[in-house]
Amino acid sequence: MVGGGQLARMTHEAGIPLGIRFKLLSASPQESAAQVVRDVVVGDHRDLDTLRRFAQGCDVITFDHEHVPTEHLRALEAEGVPVRPGPDALVHAQDKGVMRAALDRIGIASPRHRIVTDPADVTRFAAEGATGGDGYPVVLKTVRGGYDGKGVWVVRDEAGAAEPFRAGVPVLAEEKVDFARELAASVVRSPHGQAVAYPVVESVQVDGVCDTVIAPAPDLSGERAAEAQRMALTIARELGVTGHLAVELFETRDGRLLVNELAMRPHNSGHWTQDGAVTSQFANHLRAVLDLPLGAPGARAPWTVMVNVLGGDYPDMYSAYLHCMARDPQLKIHMYGKDVKPGRKVGHVTTYGDDLSEVLDRARHAAGYLRGTITE
Amino acid sequence: MVGGGQLARMTHEAGIPLGIRFKLLSASPQESAAQVVRDVVVGDHRDLDTLRRFAQGCDVITFDHEHVPTEHLRALEAEGVPVRPGPDALVHAQDKGVMRAALDRIGIASPRHRIVTDPADVTRFAAEGATGGDGYPVVLKTVRGGYDGKGVWVVRDEAGAAEPFRAGVPVLAEEKVDFARELAASVVRSPHGQAVAYPVVESVQVDGVCDTVIAPAPDLSGERAAEAQRMALTIARELGVTGHLAVELFETRDGRLLVNELAMRPHNSGHWTQDGAVTSQFANHLRAVLDLPLGAPGARAPWTVMVNVLGGDYPDMYSAYLHCMARDPQLKIHMYGKDVKPGRKVGHVTTYGDDLSEVLDRARHAAGYLRGTITE
Repeated sequence: MVGGGQLARMTHEAGIPLGIRFKLLSASPQESAAQVVRDVVVGDHRDLDTLRRFAQGCDVITFDHEHVPTEHLRALEAEGVPVRPGPDALVHAQDKGVMRAALDRIGIASPRHRIVTDPADVTRFAAEGATGGDGYPVVLKTVRGGYDGKGVWVVRDEAGAAEPFRAGVPVLAEEKVDFARELAASVVRSPHGQAVAYPVVESVQVDGVCDTVIAPAPDLSGERAAEAQRMALTIARELGVTGHLAVELFETRDGRLLVNELAMRPHNSGHWTQDGAVTSQFANHLRAVLDLPLGAPGARAPWTVMVNVLGGDYPDMYSAYLHCMARDPQLKIHMYGKDVKPGRKVGHVTTYGDDLSEVLDRARHAAGYLRGTITE
Repeated sequence: MVGGGQLARMTHEAGIPLGIRFKLLSASPQESAAQVVRDVVVGDHRDLDTLRRFAQGCDVITFDHEHVPTEHLRALEAEGVPVRPGPDALVHAQDKGVMRAALDRIGIASPRHRIVTDPADVTRFAAEGATGGDGYPVVLKTVRGGYDGKGVWVVRDEAGAAEPFRAGVPVLAEEKVDFARELAASVVRSPHGQAVAYPVVESVQVDGVCDTVIAPAPDLSGERAAEAQRMALTIARELGVTGHLAVELFETRDGRLLVNELAMRPHNSGHWTQDGAVTSQFANHLRAVLDLPLGAPGARAPWTVMVNVLGGDYPDMYSAYLHCMARDPQLKIHMYGKDVKPGRKVGHVTTYGDDLSEVLDRARHAAGYLRGTITE
C-alpha cells in the first residue's frame, strides 16, 4: 500500500487475519502505518523510481491516498505491475473535473458545475444558475489535491473568487447545494466484477471535516437507500473501480441525491464498519484488490456511530484515554499513533447498540473528552 | 511480547487500534508474529542477556508462551523490568506440580494427583484411588514443557508408565477423570485488581488438541457458569495473575468442576472473542498488562463457534481459502502466516449467529475444507 497514514495502518490490521503480507511505502518511518508494519519502504510516492523499487515483490499495489501522479501509475501498469484501482479509474478520484465529466456521461446527478477560467467567469457561472440575485454563493474547488476541506472555497462575490486561481491549477465551480444532510454510499468491487454495498450512512461534517457517521442513516427510506446504493454500484462498474469506493452524497431538501465527492480507498465514512459490520471496509478493500471473494457488508447492530477524535490543546491524551475506557467499557477506541496537534485527526471511537440517542451520546462524549472539549 | 507465534501475531493486531507500540522477541524473522510487527528482536527467549536487551525501551513485558525460565523472569524483575504476569504468578502455568499445590492450598478442586517418582510409585498412586481393580488408567504429565497433548500420557499399567520418567524431570500423576465435557473459564485481571470474566465456553479436543470452541457452553446452567467464573476469578486473585487467565475445566458426569490446566496468556479457547465478544481476549490482555481499564467481555451474538484449521496433506491452501470465502461471506478466517504441515495449527475460523447447529456446521465445514478433509 502506498501511503503511511491511518488508512494504511488500519488496512494492515485488517490484513493480518487474512494472512496477507503487507508492504508499505511511507514518507517517513514515523508515520501512522509505518509504526506497525514489518516491511516498510521509506520514500516519496511522487517519484517513479521509488514506486518501481517498492513494487518489486508486490502482487498488487493499492493506495491510502490519491496523490500518486496518474502518469506514474500508467507507467507502472505498462511495466506489468497490477495497480488497483487502476489509473483509468483512480483519475476520477484525483481530478474533480474528470470526475464530474464522467458522472455527466454515465447519467449520475451532480451539483451544477463547470470548469471556470477566472473570477469574471465565476460570476458568469453564478448568473447562469441564478433564480434571483447574482447566483452567488458559488463553491470553487481546485480539481486536484484537495481533501478535508482544503482546496475548497465558498465564495460570495467576484472579489472573493480570486484566491483559488492563484495556484495556477484548473478550478471547478459548483452550485452551493441547499442540502438537508450528507450521506455516504460505499461499495467494494473486485476485478472479476463481484460487488457488495454497505448500508448507507449519514455523515456530519464540521468545518469541512468529517465529524460523526451514523450507520445506517436515520429516517432514510428503503427506496432512497437503494437509490444511493445503485448510484454507487453504477459508478464503480462504469468507472472500472477495484476496491472500496465511497460516494459522498448531498440529500437535497427537495429530495434528490447529488454526488459530492468520490474516494477510491478506505474512507472515513466507513470506519464504523470495523466494529459495526460483518466485514470491515479495510478487509473488503484488501479482498477486492487481491481478487478474493468479498465478505458480507451487513451491519452487526441496529445502530453504529463513529466520531472522529481530533487533537485538542493538550498534547498528552493519556489520562483522557484512561477515563474514556473506564467510563464506557463497551467503547471501541482506534488510535492512529500520531502526535496530537490541534484539529488533527488522531483517532476515532465507535459505539453500537439498540438506542441511537444513547449510542450517539456515548461516542460524542468520548470523542469530546479525548479532545478536551468535555471535561466531566 | 516474548514469543513469535500466532498469539503474539493476534495480540499485535489487537494493539494497533489501542495505539500500542508493540515490540517482539522472536526466535526467527519468519515466525507468525514477526511477519507483521515493525519492531522485532530475533533471539532466544531462554537467554537472559537476550531478554535484557529486548527489555530495553519496553514499558512492560508479556508472553505468548510459558517457556521463559522462571529464574530469568525473577532476574528481570529484580532489575526493575515490569514483567506481567510476574514470575510468582506465571510459575503456576509453567509447572504443573506448583499449580496443583497452589490450587489445593486455595481450595480449588483438581483431579486427584501427586508427584510420582517411578513406575512402581505410579502403581501405588493408582491403587490409592482404586474403587475396584488396580486403579489404572492414570494420566502422567511432565511438570514442565508440555502443550497441545505433548508431555501427557494416559497409561494403562506399570510397564506403560516408564516413558514419562525417561526425560529425568518430575512427573505428576493424575486420576483419569470421567468427564462429560471440557469447559474453559477465562478472566482478565489488571495490576490494580480490576477483573472481567468472559462467558464460559465448551471446548472440544481431538487427539489432545483444541478443535472446536462453542460460546457460551450449551446447556450450562447459570449456577454452574457462575461457579466456573468464580473459580477463575479466585485463581486470578489468589495467584496474583496479571493479564488473561484461561482455566481449562473438566465437567464431570456427577456434576463437579475440576481444574485441568491454567494458561496465563491469550488462549485458544478465547479466540472466539475476536469476532464474538465486545472486547477480544487479546485487547483485554494488553489492557491488563498495561494497567488500562478493561473492556466489556460480553458476547455480541447468541452463539459464536471457533474451529481450528489444521494443516492437511495439501501444502497450498489457496484454492480452499477462495472456496470458503465465496461459500460463506459471513465466515471470519484468521490465518497465522505459517507453512502448512499436517496437523499443525495454521489458522482458525469463527462463525456466529442465532442458531447453534447452523453456526457449528458452517465453522466445521470451513475448517474441514481448508484442511482438505471435506472436498465438497
